[in-house]
Amino acid sequence: MGNKGAIGLIDSGVGGLTVLKEALRQLPNEELVYLGDTARCPYGPRPAEQVIEYTWQMAEFLMKQNIKLLVIACNTATAVALDIIREKLPIPVVGVILPGSRAAVKTTKTRRIGVIGTQGTIKSGSYREAILSKTAEVTIFDLACPKFVALVESNETRSPIAKKVVAETLQPMRRNKVDTLILGCTHYPLLRQLIQSYMGDEVTLIDSGAETVGEVSVLLDYFDIANPDPAKQGACHFYTTGSTKLFDDIAQDWLEFPVHSKHIELGEKP
Amino acid sequence: MGNKGAIGLIDSGVGGLTVLKEALRQLPNEELVYLGDTARCPYGPRPAEQVIEYTWQMAEFLMKQNIKLLVIACNTATAVALDIIREKLPIPVVGVILPGSRAAVKTTKTRRIGVIGTQGTIKSGSYREAILSKTAEVTIFDLACPKFVALVESNETRSPIAKKVVAETLQPMRRNKVDTLILGCTHYPLLRQLIQSYMGDEVTLIDSGAETVGEVSVLLDYFDIANPDPAKQGACHFYTTGSTKLFDDIAQDWLEFPVHSKHIELGEKP
Repeated sequence: MGNKGAIGLIDSGVGGLTVLKEALRQLPNEELVYLGDTARCPYGPRPAEQVIEYTWQMAEFLMKQNIKLLVIACNTATAVALDIIREKLPIPVVGVILPGSRAAVKTTKTRRIGVIGTQGTIKSGSYREAILSKTAEVTIFDLACPKFVALVESNETRSPIAKKVVAETLQPMRRNKVDTLILGCTHYPLLRQLIQSYMGDEVTLIDSGAETVGEVSVLLDYFDIANPDPAKQGACHFYTTGSTKLFDDIAQDWLEFPVHSKHIELGEKP
Repeated sequence: MGNKGAIGLIDSGVGGLTVLKEALRQLPNEELVYLGDTARCPYGPRPAEQVIEYTWQMAEFLMKQNIKLLVIACNTATAVALDIIREKLPIPVVGVILPGSRAAVKTTKTRRIGVIGTQGTIKSGSYREAILSKTAEVTIFDLACPKFVALVESNETRSPIAKKVVAETLQPMRRNKVDTLILGCTHYPLLRQLIQSYMGDEVTLIDSGAETVGEVSVLLDYFDIANPDPAKQGACHFYTTGSTKLFDDIAQDWLEFPVHSKHIELGEKP
């Protein structure tokens, strides 16, 4: 622990990089360690027990890297594993679902909120539950978008096929006339322009990952573990269980600086 | 403590009502107890020891009302008393300076941030310190606006004199070409339209009080003390050390529902 430790971020793949990018902007003093379980991505269709097991393996790996706070930068993992991981670890653990829910309640004027996410996240009902724990006076529409993660992980967010998939998938959501739409998967901000353009400018998109950094900042201050001095140059470390080449390509494109990830193996060898 | 307790809010006068209004919107399940020390307002020009003493008297009064979390909804009191009150109380205590600072760092694009507040707040350097603890890569311009609180407490925010005072006071700030301006006093959102119109639409105003409710929400969830059920109708209680008539007039106008405050005395009788 202590003010000099790093902030750990874990995700099923590259989606959590949207949270990391926001952390670099809002918390430039902090050292960051990112782990993407790209080899076993997507988590969305997996059974809850498996997601819990994989998330725990990632958390264990980062605990060995001297982290002072852990962000589960993956909605699917947050939905099923946040409480368990929080109970097991001696450091603050932050998920992405409550921050996104809070921001949506704060933003909506018509009180019609949409949520899109993976099958796992939507099936868990976690966003619905989190929003309704804040206020009963809203109508919530949720929709699983099982094809979105693959578009991002294959670095296809700018292809014509992406535009078509986004439009086809979101068609039922557009009919709900929500004024606020939660991007309930950290991969989705990489499709933000396509989603915004299809849903229309009058819909406010909530980037649950970006909102999460606000919660991280609150807890760093509350527990007095923020780093008061600027982080060293390049104080950002990346690990992936999959191809470092593909990870670096997507990461560099999104973060706009050179990324050199390291490959690691998690769990039992097959 | 426990999920059923109320959230306490204290301010030197009516300014903290801007925080309360936001809490009603973002946290409709929570019971709120507000105390405004109107009789001894403004706190801005008072010496730090006196502000600490007054703030402590307010906190003690609310602790007897079964509060589970305390918001120091006053920038002057936050600047000098937050650490001391937090150390003394067994419940989470939230101030308004860090949330406003965080929001400004998140918002600015040109990295030129303005801060306006009372003499006490600006003199304390608390905003400057809080912002620089997040990032060194910003230029901060601060300005004390000693006449603003009186305009609000005398219910004169719509008078031509208010427009003139706002313009005269903010003239040096407009020259700094900031893109983000922190309203570093919870009274100032009641002058928001005048301030926005004088500063121009390209300047984003940060309502530190509204941002504070986000921090309250994070801590309610983190410590698992949020109220999961809708609050009872009228679960909002008001106390003032000054005139209940003047307090109710301003509060009703701002909150848009009937307010019946109770008068209390704090500290030694003179």
